Amino acid sequence: MAIIECVPNISEGRRSDVVARCVAACRVAGVTVLDHSSDASHHRSVITLVGDAPGLRQAVLALYDAALAEIDLRGHSGEHPRLGAVDVVPFIPIAGVDMAACVALARDVGAAVAERTGVPVFLYEEAASSPARRNLEDIRRGEFEGLAAKMAKAEWAPDFGPAVPHASAGATVIGARMPLIAYNVNLATDRLDVAKKIAAAIRFSSGGYRFVKAMGVRLDDRHLAQVSMNLTNYEKTPVFRVFDTVKREAARYGVSVLESEIVGLVPANALFSVAAHYLQLEGFSPDQVLENKLRATPSE
Amino acid sequence: MAIIECVPNISEGRRSDVVARCVAACRVAGVTVLDHSSDASHHRSVITLVGDAPGLRQAVLALYDAALAEIDLRGHSGEHPRLGAVDVVPFIPIAGVDMAACVALARDVGAAVAERTGVPVFLYEEAASSPARRNLEDIRRGEFEGLAAKMAKAEWAPDFGPAVPHASAGATVIGARMPLIAYNVNLATDRLDVAKKIAAAIRFSSGGYRFVKAMGVRLDDRHLAQVSMNLTNYEKTPVFRVFDTVKREAARYGVSVLESEIVGLVPANALFSVAAHYLQLEGFSPDQVLENKLRATPSE
Repeated sequence: MAIIECVPNISEGRRSDVVARCVAACRVAGVTVLDHSSDASHHRSVITLVGDAPGLRQAVLALYDAALAEIDLRGHSGEHPRLGAVDVVPFIPIAGVDMAACVALARDVGAAVAERTGVPVFLYEEAASSPARRNLEDIRRGEFEGLAAKMAKAEWAPDFGPAVPHASAGATVIGARMPLIAYNVNLATDRLDVAKKIAAAIRFSSGGYRFVKAMGVRLDDRHLAQVSMNLTNYEKTPVFRVFDTVKREAARYGVSVLESEIVGLVPANALFSVAAHYLQLEGFSPDQVLENKLRATPSE
Repeated sequence: MAIIECVPNISEGRRSDVVARCVAACRVAGVTVLDHSSDASHHRSVITLVGDAPGLRQAVLALYDAALAEIDLRGHSGEHPRLGAVDVVPFIPIAGVDMAACVALARDVGAAVAERTGVPVFLYEEAASSPARRNLEDIRRGEFEGLAAKMAKAEWAPDFGPAVPHASAGATVIGARMPLIAYNVNLATDRLDVAKKIAAAIRFSSGGYRFVKAMGVRLDDRHLAQVSMNLTNYEKTPVFRVFDTVKREAARYGVSVLESEIVGLVPANALFSVAAHYLQLEGFSPDQVLENKLRATPSE
């Protein structure tokens, strides 16, 4: 059975009744609402859904209906940049489904949203129609207030829907990406400079691994330095390779790794690949995991 | 949500209609039939169920009803030793449940089986009422044919039910144990003597780890030697410790580990503990695995 995560961000973080109606719209067969949280200063809410493709398609379309009925960006002001009433909707492969299926789902939902609501749709990340549209920040630059001027340029024609913004709902960004893993390695030293040098060695922006963002920080209460990371594609830059590289770089300064930690949620497959690597497992498939076989077997 | 595995063994491996009715009896709400297989020469079938405690209790009681109606051990003959029509029923903790809960379930089901069917019940492994009853082989010694004489001795009074065998169904053995992991390490050599020495070093019977059974074998088609193991409690003797020890022992003979392999199914927690060990994960909990959180959240 396919497990896809979907994390819609809506531009409403203050009226709890509106958020509740948006969340309620997502509760359809085949979809579980794992979490939702609102930030009043950002004036934004994040809803975490998990389900299969047909269920998520239905949930997301219902969410657009609910959000567009009550959110008007012409009177909206918050700290977080936003382009639309439903600002961004990523589909994320977790288990039993690949990125191609999530890209197809993003395109399918994008076309349906534009047709149903008249809101222009931009596809991003893995679903982007061109490299210039991969990054959410590039699409969102100018925000709702600058959207009409931006879309007047040929290179910012939407992927689906009209070439002008929706009056109250702006535009919306839909796409597919890998799950993000928040991963930290704590060093057996309080030397911030060592953590910063290791972070620079492993992060993409300064020549390191393609799917690593990293910085060095000091945990003052524990008197130790930490390499704090986001791993943005655990299939292509796996956790074990990042850990081993941090350890090797630390050794160069005579520093040991004290421990590492995963902050928040992690897909099971990211940990199975760690086990398979260190055990040198040959021919291992996640289908051998009893819980996966259980999920793949129709219950009575 | 608790996931418990239950693997009833019944003394019928030839009449497929009887087996089908026994399997059908196990299909109740909250229980999934993962697999079932029959062996005609053993005259025995193994059914693999997964579910929660109330569901498995109901399924197993229904299985006893179905099996006792059609299986008569007085005319039964096969290669596999057996004591009863329903010969042995282990409950196995997989996720979200501990051994104590499986022991409690085994005792509860054992009492219910004896009261409902009049079949005497012996508890085994973790549910055993004394060390002499931990091993299935000790309870089963003498088989159905020797059961009346065996039970006439005070030390073989059953844990539940009458002190004499059921006329057609004999007795039954119910208990709780950890899942078994079939795990092999392939060596980068064809020297069988090295595999045998490593097996002797790590198995319980010759002084090794408490929950390891091991032997050395040669894979003639691949020209390599293998340490072939059963790991009978991955919580107390974890996979990573066994792997590292095999590797270290092999190095003593100048031999490298080529690869390892898991044969058949493995609980996710056994692999999570491998990942947590090598990554030196601090404060990791299986609750952080997205799929586990999904399972713990009521679906809509």
